[in-house]
Amino acid sequence: MPAETVTRFFESKEPFPLREGSPLPGLTLAYETWGELNEDASNAVVLFHALSGSHHAAGRNTSIPGTGDLWQPELHQGWWENMIGPGKAIDTDMLFVICPNYLGGCYGSTGPASLNPETGRRWGSSFPSICATDQVNAAALLLDHLGIATLHAVVGPSVGGLIALSFATRLPDRVRHVINIAAGFRTTVLNRLILFEQILAIENDPNFNGGDFYETKPPFYGLALARMISHKTFVHLDSFENRARQDVIQSDDVLAWYRVRDQFQSYMLHQGKKFVRRFDANTYLRIIDMWSRFDALNEGDAQTPEELFAGAKKAGQKWLVFSIDSDFCFYPEEQTELVSHLEKSGVSVMHITVHSDKGHDSFLLEPDLYTPHIAWALR
Amino acid sequence: MPAETVTRFFESKEPFPLREGSPLPGLTLAYETWGELNEDASNAVVLFHALSGSHHAAGRNTSIPGTGDLWQPELHQGWWENMIGPGKAIDTDMLFVICPNYLGGCYGSTGPASLNPETGRRWGSSFPSICATDQVNAAALLLDHLGIATLHAVVGPSVGGLIALSFATRLPDRVRHVINIAAGFRTTVLNRLILFEQILAIENDPNFNGGDFYETKPPFYGLALARMISHKTFVHLDSFENRARQDVIQSDDVLAWYRVRDQFQSYMLHQGKKFVRRFDANTYLRIIDMWSRFDALNEGDAQTPEELFAGAKKAGQKWLVFSIDSDFCFYPEEQTELVSHLEKSGVSVMHITVHSDKGHDSFLLEPDLYTPHIAWALR
Repeated sequence: MPAETVTRFFESKEPFPLREGSPLPGLTLAYETWGELNEDASNAVVLFHALSGSHHAAGRNTSIPGTGDLWQPELHQGWWENMIGPGKAIDTDMLFVICPNYLGGCYGSTGPASLNPETGRRWGSSFPSICATDQVNAAALLLDHLGIATLHAVVGPSVGGLIALSFATRLPDRVRHVINIAAGFRTTVLNRLILFEQILAIENDPNFNGGDFYETKPPFYGLALARMISHKTFVHLDSFENRARQDVIQSDDVLAWYRVRDQFQSYMLHQGKKFVRRFDANTYLRIIDMWSRFDALNEGDAQTPEELFAGAKKAGQKWLVFSIDSDFCFYPEEQTELVSHLEKSGVSVMHITVHSDKGHDSFLLEPDLYTPHIAWALR
Repeated sequence: MPAETVTRFFESKEPFPLREGSPLPGLTLAYETWGELNEDASNAVVLFHALSGSHHAAGRNTSIPGTGDLWQPELHQGWWENMIGPGKAIDTDMLFVICPNYLGGCYGSTGPASLNPETGRRWGSSFPSICATDQVNAAALLLDHLGIATLHAVVGPSVGGLIALSFATRLPDRVRHVINIAAGFRTTVLNRLILFEQILAIENDPNFNGGDFYETKPPFYGLALARMISHKTFVHLDSFENRARQDVIQSDDVLAWYRVRDQFQSYMLHQGKKFVRRFDANTYLRIIDMWSRFDALNEGDAQTPEELFAGAKKAGQKWLVFSIDSDFCFYPEEQTELVSHLEKSGVSVMHITVHSDKGHDSFLLEPDLYTPHIAWALR
């Protein structure tokens, strides 16, 4: 049984400027930590989570104050339990690991379901757009609060890799190692279309109401469809086929007109229905909007990759970039592009492609593929 | 200016049995023809259209009685104008070409928007599921009516290729040549998921009402999203990127919460919005359901490919199968599977892969890639 963990809350009452739009009147970041910060605060690692992840990356956490019913039992075990801990890839005998819930999140950080202190009502539709740079600035504020000037490493799988990249380029002097897993440099056209489909799926839900649904019914069908659209890109369809083939068609798989008679569709529908119990549609929209607009150059206010990575080179950052050969979400070509820019910019980088039949989700499921290189890099 | 054409209507008052569910109380098939049937009725070619196509494959047709506003100006020119005509791939100096609108269609054939003669009301939600075999049987009825026992050829691109395959295997003695372009043998898991997303997109629209929306507002947003989901698989994203990059973001691209700021999303949204003016959501559901469930073995009531193609072999059918190397809708592997089954079954088959940067839509856009082999096969 993993150790019990507890969510901490960092609160700032200062206005928090956003890259676009008005500042937020203060913010709360939910986060968890593992291991101990050493005396000179030199052993800290910040981990950024994936699209639908949380700050609860390891251990067991059965409740997060203020998240209502969203904190479902399936979330109680940390999503990277097999990667964080004593003797693991991110070794908590040596390192102090911090994982914040995204700004705009639904697991304790300030987000669309939070109360707007200026109105006393939930933000809903009025919650602003968030971009990767905003996540970087929020995390930096948390590090200031914890007394950490420079990170031993910033780590991010999937969408978390986009934020890790932004952190390392915006604040190059605060990072020594960057570990970037199955992410990219600039959101592809294919992904922008797939993310847009998901935005429309939610917006088309009659319960969405622009995002003001907290007093009524949430847009469950739209969010479930969005999840299904993205879930298909997270898995490798061959192994998905094998997994779903054993499933039976659920008895409640009857829609308005369509009768589900296919175990793959049934499996996917089940995934979508499960997801809506644990996630907020407005948070989902904020994160996929952030992802959809992601362009490392733009986030770094740079004209060229060389300009973007100049600080990283000067600071002597060491990058470790992972590709998954069966990844249909962030294709291996995307990491190759990132690595090529790093190399041309003179930044130290190691690029490892792991072979998996699990697709993008491999980073959650196959710790042995990542542990040796990550442990080596962080030692 | 292409020649004017006119839609013909074949009507049968006999109950039409369906593979699943109750018979239809009679049916109407809208169709067009080009060229002249010769004396021994041996020069007929049946063409099956794609998902959102129509029976108006060539020439100019400015109105189809009974289709209301759906027959938009963009449809007035036939979708295969560059392939059908004197001296073209399907040479109307020699051949008599027939293209029926699908049963369940929205361009004149009996479909969900038709009046159910038993109730005097539009079918809507009560219109049954249609499968490839039903399309074969409906087309065969039309051929009987036209006095055509055996076809010189059956031709089908995309979803039309699934119906052509079914026709050739269910009625092997009625077909001499089969031309199958960018289709498959059995719908893949990926396509079944993508089609299911489209079904849900429509079902989730508050105006869908199970399919009974003819007296109210149609599910425009759901159908537009469905079209966007599929459209992405019809194009090759590199050339799509080039095309869309020149687009400006439309001023009306503001959704409930999301502001479109990306020309690819804007282009796709525009495609979706354009489509809903010309297509019926219930028809769309019937055709994608047919596609989603398609399995050649099942449609042919066969246990093995050899059993399926035994009649084709006996009849001495000649097959011509095209793959498009950049096709992300029906992947080249799918045609390879079909060809492999044909070869193992001893059926004469030629498999041509064309190189294109246009993706699945190549069959509509690049006649020169297909014309020589088709003209050769049909001569």
